[in-house]
Amino acid sequence: MALLGGIEAGGTKFICAVGTDPDNLQAQTRIETTTPDETLGQVVDFFRKQQKIEVIEAIGIGAFGPVGVNPGSEKFGWFLNTPKPGWQQVDFAGRMQRELGVKVGFDTDVNAAALAEHRWGNAQGLENFVYLTVGTGIGGGGMVAGKLIHGLLHPEMGHVLIPHDASADPFEGSCPFHKDCLEGLASGLAMEKRWGKKGIFLPPEHPAWALEAQYLAMGLMNYILTLSPQRIIMGGGVMAQKQLFPMVRAQVRERLNNYLDVPAIMRDIDSYIVPPGLGDKAGLAGAFALAEG
Amino acid sequence: MALLGGIEAGGTKFICAVGTDPDNLQAQTRIETTTPDETLGQVVDFFRKQQKIEVIEAIGIGAFGPVGVNPGSEKFGWFLNTPKPGWQQVDFAGRMQRELGVKVGFDTDVNAAALAEHRWGNAQGLENFVYLTVGTGIGGGGMVAGKLIHGLLHPEMGHVLIPHDASADPFEGSCPFHKDCLEGLASGLAMEKRWGKKGIFLPPEHPAWALEAQYLAMGLMNYILTLSPQRIIMGGGVMAQKQLFPMVRAQVRERLNNYLDVPAIMRDIDSYIVPPGLGDKAGLAGAFALAEG
Repeated sequence: MALLGGIEAGGTKFICAVGTDPDNLQAQTRIETTTPDETLGQVVDFFRKQQKIEVIEAIGIGAFGPVGVNPGSEKFGWFLNTPKPGWQQVDFAGRMQRELGVKVGFDTDVNAAALAEHRWGNAQGLENFVYLTVGTGIGGGGMVAGKLIHGLLHPEMGHVLIPHDASADPFEGSCPFHKDCLEGLASGLAMEKRWGKKGIFLPPEHPAWALEAQYLAMGLMNYILTLSPQRIIMGGGVMAQKQLFPMVRAQVRERLNNYLDVPAIMRDIDSYIVPPGLGDKAGLAGAFALAEG
Repeated sequence: MALLGGIEAGGTKFICAVGTDPDNLQAQTRIETTTPDETLGQVVDFFRKQQKIEVIEAIGIGAFGPVGVNPGSEKFGWFLNTPKPGWQQVDFAGRMQRELGVKVGFDTDVNAAALAEHRWGNAQGLENFVYLTVGTGIGGGGMVAGKLIHGLLHPEMGHVLIPHDASADPFEGSCPFHKDCLEGLASGLAMEKRWGKKGIFLPPEHPAWALEAQYLAMGLMNYILTLSPQRIIMGGGVMAQKQLFPMVRAQVRERLNNYLDVPAIMRDIDSYIVPPGLGDKAGLAGAFALAEG
């Protein structure tokens, strides 16, 4: 069996693994996201150690963004103007390819997770869906007509603009580029800055969650109106707070206000806005799917 | 040569034509949009008169929305919950098919125009683009991966939510479903309600246009972040005010704030946000393209 490698490159940690598929791993490691040189150096070290044991045919990477995903671009596989300090304009895929001498598949972390959900999880059989991750940041990906969404660059749907009533929520927003875009209002980082503690320390009845559901529903409404997805999968650390799902569903329905008269929203919204079928394994599984090409 | 029919079904008027292609019309008429029975009756009359002269092989329809565009749905070709009074839940394509006995191609007016721009206009060779029409209402369509965007229903991107600073612009919005969504703030109808006269009567230096450009740019920013289009084509009556284009482009760039580091936006935005290559013929041309199937 051919060995593949997978890298789930996140803003907090990189998960690297080697195996025949995501369910059959021979080695796995977790590397802290510090500086590009240190982190990418450790990634290379991990795979080189594995290469001494057995040949790795290809490595798949799902990376936090924005990254260059157009294979025709000279910045394919680069971190571009990411808000992550120190990580702007860093060649990632190219470095892996050169230093490890393997074929590299590359996409955003969310498109990787979307691909995994399409292959093994809650998006099987769907042609149009959105995968949104709400963690430290907010990232989105998905498919239209059965293909991962790519265009000029790639979707950065976490940064869509939404209404922000500053009299009800005076927090100015945490996004260094757009202040109170969706990510700036509803990411884990935004929650932490607004309430003075991480979401995980806020009890389920805290008003933070109703506000969070309101902002997320506004974002979802914009995706629904723009992409017309057959389903929306919501993952990431913030969505581990399961009380959010019913609140988000109710808000989406209320805000759409019967405009979209389809059973998926009017009747079956519980199976329209769902958590990932693969749980927190979607990211790494997606990296393996990208390695398979 | 086979004869085709095209219907550009708008909220104000229906344009119907018969010909071998949109540049070779044998008959054309304009029918006022009043009630479904009256308007659709006149449409049938027009085509029946033409059918007495020659066989019409197929008719293509591009219709204002929301309409059912999923061929598998029992409401394929219907007007659904449109804000247009009296036009909710009306079977359109089925009636044409039954009464005229021809094959009918059907999509939204904007997807029809997008298809025409892709075949003959400013979206030739592009796989991912948005076509936005800003008229009485705001509608959007386009392609992802070379296919017209369809999913659960179809995109209704004119209704995305955007920030609305009520202290700077106290107008509450004109959308009967969402009040101050993009359409509610920036459609021709919204302009008329806010300023007390139609946009066409407001001089180019009127502050209405800067506000209009601001709202449109917010909508465009959301589409760019969600769909990552290679180009955005903006048509419709409001966009006939050419002074809007440079203002919209400048606002899009300012709001994205260097987040998307791609030449199309950073350097070539004049060819990124453009009017339709087919001008106001895109709608009817798109209907013919839909008839061709």
